[in-house]
Amino acid sequence: MIEKVDLTSKIDEKQYKLLMKDYEKKLASLQREIKDNDIPLILVFEGWGASGKGTIINRLILPLDPRGFRVYTTNYFTEEEYLRPFLWTFWVKTPERGRMAIFEKSWYRKVLSDRVDKGIKGEELSNAISDINTFERQLADDGSIILKFYLHISKKEQKKRFEKLQSNSSTKWRVTKEDLKHHQQYDAYVDVINEMLERTDSEHAPWTVLEANNIDYATIKLYVKIIETLEERLRKIKENTSTSDSLPSTAVESSSGFNVSNSILSSIDLSKSLDKDQYHLKLQQYQKKIRDLEHEIYKRRIPVIIAYEGWDAAGKGGNIKRLTENLDPRGYAVIPISSPTPHELSHHYLWRFWKEVPKAGHITIFDRTWYGRVLVERIEGYCSDEEWKRAYKEINEMEKQFVNFGMVVVKFWLHISSDEQLQRFRTRQNTPEKQWKITDEDWRNREKWQQYEEAIDEMLVRTDTTYAPWTIIESNDKRYARIKALKTVIDALDERLKQ
Amino acid sequence: MIEKVDLTSKIDEKQYKLLMKDYEKKLASLQREIKDNDIPLILVFEGWGASGKGTIINRLILPLDPRGFRVYTTNYFTEEEYLRPFLWTFWVKTPERGRMAIFEKSWYRKVLSDRVDKGIKGEELSNAISDINTFERQLADDGSIILKFYLHISKKEQKKRFEKLQSNSSTKWRVTKEDLKHHQQYDAYVDVINEMLERTDSEHAPWTVLEANNIDYATIKLYVKIIETLEERLRKIKENTSTSDSLPSTAVESSSGFNVSNSILSSIDLSKSLDKDQYHLKLQQYQKKIRDLEHEIYKRRIPVIIAYEGWDAAGKGGNIKRLTENLDPRGYAVIPISSPTPHELSHHYLWRFWKEVPKAGHITIFDRTWYGRVLVERIEGYCSDEEWKRAYKEINEMEKQFVNFGMVVVKFWLHISSDEQLQRFRTRQNTPEKQWKITDEDWRNREKWQQYEEAIDEMLVRTDTTYAPWTIIESNDKRYARIKALKTVIDALDERLKQ
Repeated sequence: MIEKVDLTSKIDEKQYKLLMKDYEKKLASLQREIKDNDIPLILVFEGWGASGKGTIINRLILPLDPRGFRVYTTNYFTEEEYLRPFLWTFWVKTPERGRMAIFEKSWYRKVLSDRVDKGIKGEELSNAISDINTFERQLADDGSIILKFYLHISKKEQKKRFEKLQSNSSTKWRVTKEDLKHHQQYDAYVDVINEMLERTDSEHAPWTVLEANNIDYATIKLYVKIIETLEERLRKIKENTSTSDSLPSTAVESSSGFNVSNSILSSIDLSKSLDKDQYHLKLQQYQKKIRDLEHEIYKRRIPVIIAYEGWDAAGKGGNIKRLTENLDPRGYAVIPISSPTPHELSHHYLWRFWKEVPKAGHITIFDRTWYGRVLVERIEGYCSDEEWKRAYKEINEMEKQFVNFGMVVVKFWLHISSDEQLQRFRTRQNTPEKQWKITDEDWRNREKWQQYEEAIDEMLVRTDTTYAPWTIIESNDKRYARIKALKTVIDALDERLKQ
Repeated sequence: MIEKVDLTSKIDEKQYKLLMKDYEKKLASLQREIKDNDIPLILVFEGWGASGKGTIINRLILPLDPRGFRVYTTNYFTEEEYLRPFLWTFWVKTPERGRMAIFEKSWYRKVLSDRVDKGIKGEELSNAISDINTFERQLADDGSIILKFYLHISKKEQKKRFEKLQSNSSTKWRVTKEDLKHHQQYDAYVDVINEMLERTDSEHAPWTVLEANNIDYATIKLYVKIIETLEERLRKIKENTSTSDSLPSTAVESSSGFNVSNSILSSIDLSKSLDKDQYHLKLQQYQKKIRDLEHEIYKRRIPVIIAYEGWDAAGKGGNIKRLTENLDPRGYAVIPISSPTPHELSHHYLWRFWKEVPKAGHITIFDRTWYGRVLVERIEGYCSDEEWKRAYKEINEMEKQFVNFGMVVVKFWLHISSDEQLQRFRTRQNTPEKQWKITDEDWRNREKWQQYEEAIDEMLVRTDTTYAPWTIIESNDKRYARIKALKTVIDALDERLKQ
């Protein structure tokens, strides 16, 4: 593929300046339009050493309003980054709606230089490519425009540029041993690059090869690609706006179509309980055990997510407290999830969870989770039908990435009966020191019990996977629930430590 | 000091449980009150190895609502952290109003283990201590409650605990070589700890030594200290609220009292200009030079801040563009500063600038800065008189810390005449593609020219320091202004590179 690119393409200086004057104005104005239309734009620059990535990025940002973009350079992964799934680094940098993120080197490092230097192949390579495609598709589905550019130069041109850099004392250091090694491996890299371009090129995140032997030519091609893509999107938005009143949308079904005749929740035996003596005995035993396991997973650098979902007043707080009571606080964190802030809303809904991904060796306990998308957001209409329906797959993909990285993912649904909830609400209301725990919203949610039950059932079916299974915790009896949660975590960690 | 602490202090288990039941409830309720009153709470835990920091922190957080706090552990500084002033790590973690940050090990690392291991002494030690005191005072002035705890155990007790940890296979690894070395140095550490306690104990951020031979006793003492401090603050808030209507505040003067008879701005010669040919010649020459310097400071790991302030329409954007036009985008970032978001407002006003402190070797250009505090915030009344008056000192302290770290700090005031501004406003309004650049707010600010002039003059006098001097850029002529800014940066970098 890239070996067939015509690297003799060029443009003369006069024509370049003339075109750029126009293009720069256009891009500046398009930047304001994507801001007004809340479109996040992601630009990726990969390319040979000395192919001019720095220069072309600078030419790109000069006409832009600096309030609207950020440039990220990834020369290497830091220790903090290696302790997390490799896309974490980039998830946390995805731009807010209306803003632009420019990546000089990117997540493709994993399938380019890291692939060659660390010999990534086989399943690890396939996983990396599939993770990358998933990542880009999820962002595109959320409205991001993603454009990827590969700056291509010939081996001869690269040699010439390295020699020029080396001949100047203030740029000499920029040619590293690694660069020279990669130069030697030029032909081998061609195959790697071709494979990458082929396996990660998609309609929603296309690659464009820039003929960078002539940087002016490459710049023009870059501008044209960006301008055309942005104009196309804006045109579509206008079309949709002008027709949305007259035509019914066919893309979105109004009902879920999910069959709940065999409700999972209704088959749960909520009479399970544990007497006080047994409870205290087991609690002590398991809390000791789990502290030992916390040390083990720290030593073995295993990251752990424990995700708590459940009805209001199902006892999540008390359950988490028993789980963490004897843990070392340096090894775990409890992340409570409430409704998203405006800042969080301006990102992909999974962004705020990616930010909290535990480091290898650490435990993150989520008190409510990303499943809010298919529960409260679905029922309250905080997202479109299309969005929550897509979410099952997105969530499964995310959890799969975590598990591929070596993470243990434990998910709890704390289940209580409607009667039990009512009784607990009343107790809260009648106990002065507990009143703050009960709000009008809790009562409103309670009225939608039926709808929630349907959503929960669908969630349990669609996101119960071999790698991240759900555990339903019968929680009418709090003692039973706490012990079962503890035991489930212990078993999951034990299992993982055996590997 | 600590050698005189009575380590035989203890409490029996029954009494402990009885007290804790009460204290835990109290603390949970106080947590809600500090949230309602927007008080940020910072708790620092330092102490000997195996003194029980993990245990006591867990006992502290168990009754708390996890939405309200976060535990931070600093076992070591990462590479990213060593590339920035040491307080950066902690500034970015300071809690929002109403929330709690718990530090297990903290900024005191620098004057404890780092001091011993890296032989920090003399001026470096004094600077570190003064930086710490400044940091805590600035946060306290902003309303933070800061409590610091040192967990003290005897050498004998420490030995016993290490032996116990070592005897269990799942905890053995927790006793590191470093721990054993520190144990050998116990007596030397006593002196270091005493000096630290003495030199960093203050009314607004007091130290409490916890007798941790008996962890129950230490826990009770910890709870009492926190509860008393919070109750005291809440009591004061209530008093102030109830009396504020009847009594005039004497703490705040209503006028600045700053003498502006010799206005700095009025003495600036705005007729300075540069013809087109000279401009292009110098621009090319300087832009080449500054790119070389960018490489040099990267090699030498020197961080650089370039701070742009100036009248509306003074040409900051165009000036920054010429400065960065030929730079490598991997080495610099332009950070535009607009009015703070609600999230930023819930932090100390310097927090959002600390977050953007450049890494060693990188350049950060601020398009507007922390000086907003003594300009727009002063004039529009976005902060109290007391707050902006305090800000001169706070800003000088911050810049001093940057410079002590090895940073170059260049500050520009882009000056134009009132007539020139009017003309530029009119041009913007009459040029379709520039209209977005002019807002009603710009016109409103213009009406306050006189007030701004006073504020700017005071700012220039009070924050012009030997380590971070102001440069006034005569900007009626844009060409002259751009060249002067470039030249100033070049000279500052040249100067620094000579050191």
